[in-house]
Amino acid sequence: MEKINKNVLNQVIAQRDPQSYKGNYGKILIIAGSTQFGGASILCSSAAVNSGAGLVTVATTPEKFTAINVRIPEAMTIDYHQKHDLAQAIQNNEVIAIGPGLGTSSIAKGLVKAALRLTTTHQTLILDASALTLIAQEKIPVDTKANIVMTPHQGEWQRLSHLPINEQIPENNFKQLQSLNSQAVLILKKHLSEIYYQDQVFQIQAGNPGMATGGMGDTLTGIMAGFIGQFGYSLETISAALLIHSLIADKLYKDNYVVLPSKIISKLPKYMKKFSQIK
Amino acid sequence: MEKINKNVLNQVIAQRDPQSYKGNYGKILIIAGSTQFGGASILCSSAAVNSGAGLVTVATTPEKFTAINVRIPEAMTIDYHQKHDLAQAIQNNEVIAIGPGLGTSSIAKGLVKAALRLTTTHQTLILDASALTLIAQEKIPVDTKANIVMTPHQGEWQRLSHLPINEQIPENNFKQLQSLNSQAVLILKKHLSEIYYQDQVFQIQAGNPGMATGGMGDTLTGIMAGFIGQFGYSLETISAALLIHSLIADKLYKDNYVVLPSKIISKLPKYMKKFSQIK
Amino acid sequence: MEKINKNVLNQVIAQRDPQSYKGNYGKILIIAGSTQFGGASILCSSAAVNSGAGLVTVATTPEKFTAINVRIPEAMTIDYHQKHDLAQAIQNNEVIAIGPGLGTSSIAKGLVKAALRLTTTHQTLILDASALTLIAQEKIPVDTKANIVMTPHQGEWQRLSHLPINEQIPENNFKQLQSLNSQAVLILKKHLSEIYYQDQVFQIQAGNPGMATGGMGDTLTGIMAGFIGQFGYSLETISAALLIHSLIADKLYKDNYVVLPSKIISKLPKYMKKFSQIK
Amino acid sequence: MEKINKNVLNQVIAQRDPQSYKGNYGKILIIAGSTQFGGASILCSSAAVNSGAGLVTVATTPEKFTAINVRIPEAMTIDYHQKHDLAQAIQNNEVIAIGPGLGTSSIAKGLVKAALRLTTTHQTLILDASALTLIAQEKIPVDTKANIVMTPHQGEWQRLSHLPINEQIPENNFKQLQSLNSQAVLILKKHLSEIYYQDQVFQIQAGNPGMATGGMGDTLTGIMAGFIGQFGYSLETISAALLIHSLIADKLYKDNYVVLPSKIISKLPKYMKKFSQIK
Repeated sequence: MEKINKNVLNQVIAQRDPQSYKGNYGKILIIAGSTQFGGASILCSSAAVNSGAGLVTVATTPEKFTAINVRIPEAMTIDYHQKHDLAQAIQNNEVIAIGPGLGTSSIAKGLVKAALRLTTTHQTLILDASALTLIAQEKIPVDTKANIVMTPHQGEWQRLSHLPINEQIPENNFKQLQSLNSQAVLILKKHLSEIYYQDQVFQIQAGNPGMATGGMGDTLTGIMAGFIGQFGYSLETISAALLIHSLIADKLYKDNYVVLPSKIISKLPKYMKKFSQIK
Repeated sequence: MEKINKNVLNQVIAQRDPQSYKGNYGKILIIAGSTQFGGASILCSSAAVNSGAGLVTVATTPEKFTAINVRIPEAMTIDYHQKHDLAQAIQNNEVIAIGPGLGTSSIAKGLVKAALRLTTTHQTLILDASALTLIAQEKIPVDTKANIVMTPHQGEWQRLSHLPINEQIPENNFKQLQSLNSQAVLILKKHLSEIYYQDQVFQIQAGNPGMATGGMGDTLTGIMAGFIGQFGYSLETISAALLIHSLIADKLYKDNYVVLPSKIISKLPKYMKKFSQIK
Repeated sequence: MEKINKNVLNQVIAQRDPQSYKGNYGKILIIAGSTQFGGASILCSSAAVNSGAGLVTVATTPEKFTAINVRIPEAMTIDYHQKHDLAQAIQNNEVIAIGPGLGTSSIAKGLVKAALRLTTTHQTLILDASALTLIAQEKIPVDTKANIVMTPHQGEWQRLSHLPINEQIPENNFKQLQSLNSQAVLILKKHLSEIYYQDQVFQIQAGNPGMATGGMGDTLTGIMAGFIGQFGYSLETISAALLIHSLIADKLYKDNYVVLPSKIISKLPKYMKKFSQIK
Repeated sequence: MEKINKNVLNQVIAQRDPQSYKGNYGKILIIAGSTQFGGASILCSSAAVNSGAGLVTVATTPEKFTAINVRIPEAMTIDYHQKHDLAQAIQNNEVIAIGPGLGTSSIAKGLVKAALRLTTTHQTLILDASALTLIAQEKIPVDTKANIVMTPHQGEWQRLSHLPINEQIPENNFKQLQSLNSQAVLILKKHLSEIYYQDQVFQIQAGNPGMATGGMGDTLTGIMAGFIGQFGYSLETISAALLIHSLIADKLYKDNYVVLPSKIISKLPKYMKKFSQIK
């Protein structure tokens, strides 16, 4: 299992071209949130904006627009019940992340199916949280021409793969991933998270138990979307997103018993700057 | 009356196991808030999240979901008018705190009764604020197999115990507590707050008059829930929660004429870290 | 014209009694805000809470409850359209401040009349902003047994007194104040604001043009309410409230071209602490 | 092409007269925001308030009032669907900025037409974002006696001028601006933004690619409105607004990979103070 170290950050987080504009830094659609889980859409979209994404749109239930406007006025919103608007948004964005706080209602199920059906080549679809639960529960085929990144924690991966946690070893994980979608990248979130990319496994050398708190995964998904939007879909980009999330958390853990997702988010611009300069 | 000192913090606030995940740090349900008292549910749930609780759900009136999402996106919400959802939440969480900002409507009364009826062994039920007022006023029997912690201030204790403040001495307090529920722990909030645990009284050696402001009790309840969720129900855990609340307030009082609850909350991760390291 | 200096702050801002509780620091009711002017109720109530008031209730239109809960969870709210609740709140609080952002609708007019009719001896009624405009416009008699403090800026005083700004000299101001209410205290907000108390005029030696921004008066009203709630109605208390507002603004003005009300509010606990200690 | 340097800031950002009041610092109306683009109205109005504008009113859809109250309680709000209120507000304010987050609905179209029809001599109308898109798309004549400032980015200017980006050279831009409105000032936002004023072009010597993020233009529009409200409509004022926006961003870019609009806004009072003192 290859270990990922900080070099990947210097490599991925490029210095920006002075002539660039926001269209160069990715159009991100985050399909997230529901009546009971509004915070997830805030954390995920805030993470995307703070990671440098050019344009971030949140597709959610309109009851959450006010909270999103307050917390992250840089993001735009659409009502995910409006099928036409949603379809258009899925088609017009480059990275689509679906799942944080979505719940498992029939509406959520329809959204996951729409995201799979409407994404295509050159786009990236990140499947997280409730989207993964729905895929497992409703046996939704993971079928799209877009790049796929799945980000389960161990419990979600158990539901998807039917592997109990103690059997989640690389060999088994690869086999199950193959049967879900042979092209997908799997990020298995755990102590020292793992990336399953093509036929290799990589391990993150960062992370701490202060991160064991609600909203941490939603935040990673936002960073992942922001990074892919800016730096392109690749193993390096995915690794860098995963690593910076944990590295910032490790810094915060030195002085904080629990590492709140919103604190990680607020530190993104500074740490990204730092790594963009060490060459 | 035994005095509680800082050693209890070092003892209780354990270093986290690197292999742990959020499920290890408690599932907390906070039943709080009403149209007129929305802030209480925010302060209580923010305190629980910042004290390190793994998963925090707020059962409240849906008008307050937006404010909760904005202030504490790490928390989840449910509508406490939905009886089935509420019952399920009471059964699925490990610590249930009820009362902050609940008011004394018939709905609030129903919620207190449900919390008492549906909690059971291995759970902890924290009764605070309006829940205590309702128990006094409506003569609701304090009857559950769960661990019980009651956190009245002197006025609330007067309503519950019928003891005027100047008669609230240990001997009388024990007698009245006995008649309410012989297993319950009583935290009597006052200048140098007291813990009545089994047949002993303990006194907190911290606290200051800058804490005499709205929302201070809601904050303590959130910390109490977070600590019991993480460190288990015990005299030490209860003492540590009470003590850290006042210790942080004492630090803030050095530079602040009034100590706002939201400032105490924001300092929790740092002070908890400090005490987790002094061994 | 006697000048007010910083000594009044040391004199008024008493060290708190360790045995005290929030009931000792005033029950404040702020009747403020309307659909178009929601921010005024936030600034006014935040100022009251940050100045140390024990319990702060905002009577406003329910559309503003969410914003108040988010910004100042320490405050409670009531719907000012509910006549019974409002009347009870006016009777149960010690200091009632009315006017910020209230507008001049017939509802606002009814609220001003209710505040005058229902307040009585031992209470203090602060009339500000829209309340003063309504009194001028609707010729509402300023008639109550409560202590009265009126806080017009020069334009509002012109409407009340019919004195053009260049005729607003002490002699004229006294005469007009007499005809409005011979017991009322007038605070005339301007460059070097003046207090008309009984037959004397006092002048504040602080303030700056960076304070010339929206919401500044709402903030003063909140501090005034908080100070009277804690330190009692007196010339000294009124002077101290006015002075600390401008002194903090002067400090901020050193580094800020415009002094935002929300920044003054956040500094109140620190400056009050400072002045409580210099004896 | 003349270059604009920092001297213009010292020249424009005047020290405030101690005798002044908020009426001296401009009455600003911002017509902005819609269901899907609520954040734009927050950023624009926050920028205006933080740049020192005396009174800021946001005309928007009432669904956004709560978010505006929370983020910028110093601003007032009106419902832009209320034609009479809107017309009155356009007539009573000195600077009207229209466009951020307005969208391109028929309601938005009506608002742009009303702003053009109802503004007159001595007022300034700033046309930005959706307002420019609507003018291009609906061929709305840019016809008003007010001063006009248009603030397109290159894509918006392409829609307005029919000039592809590589043909947006001074000569062509002047010709197209002439045909839109011969009196209007054009600010062309790009790497080293340009001001087309009468028959001259000026270039800003500041700005960076960290500014390539959503909401950046909305923020500039708010600063522009605030500066014109305080310092009067002139080439110098317009230059100073454009320059301070980029200068603050350049400072932030030293430590931040992406420069969030809300961070620029929060730094305005400090940087304006600095430049008001260097004479």
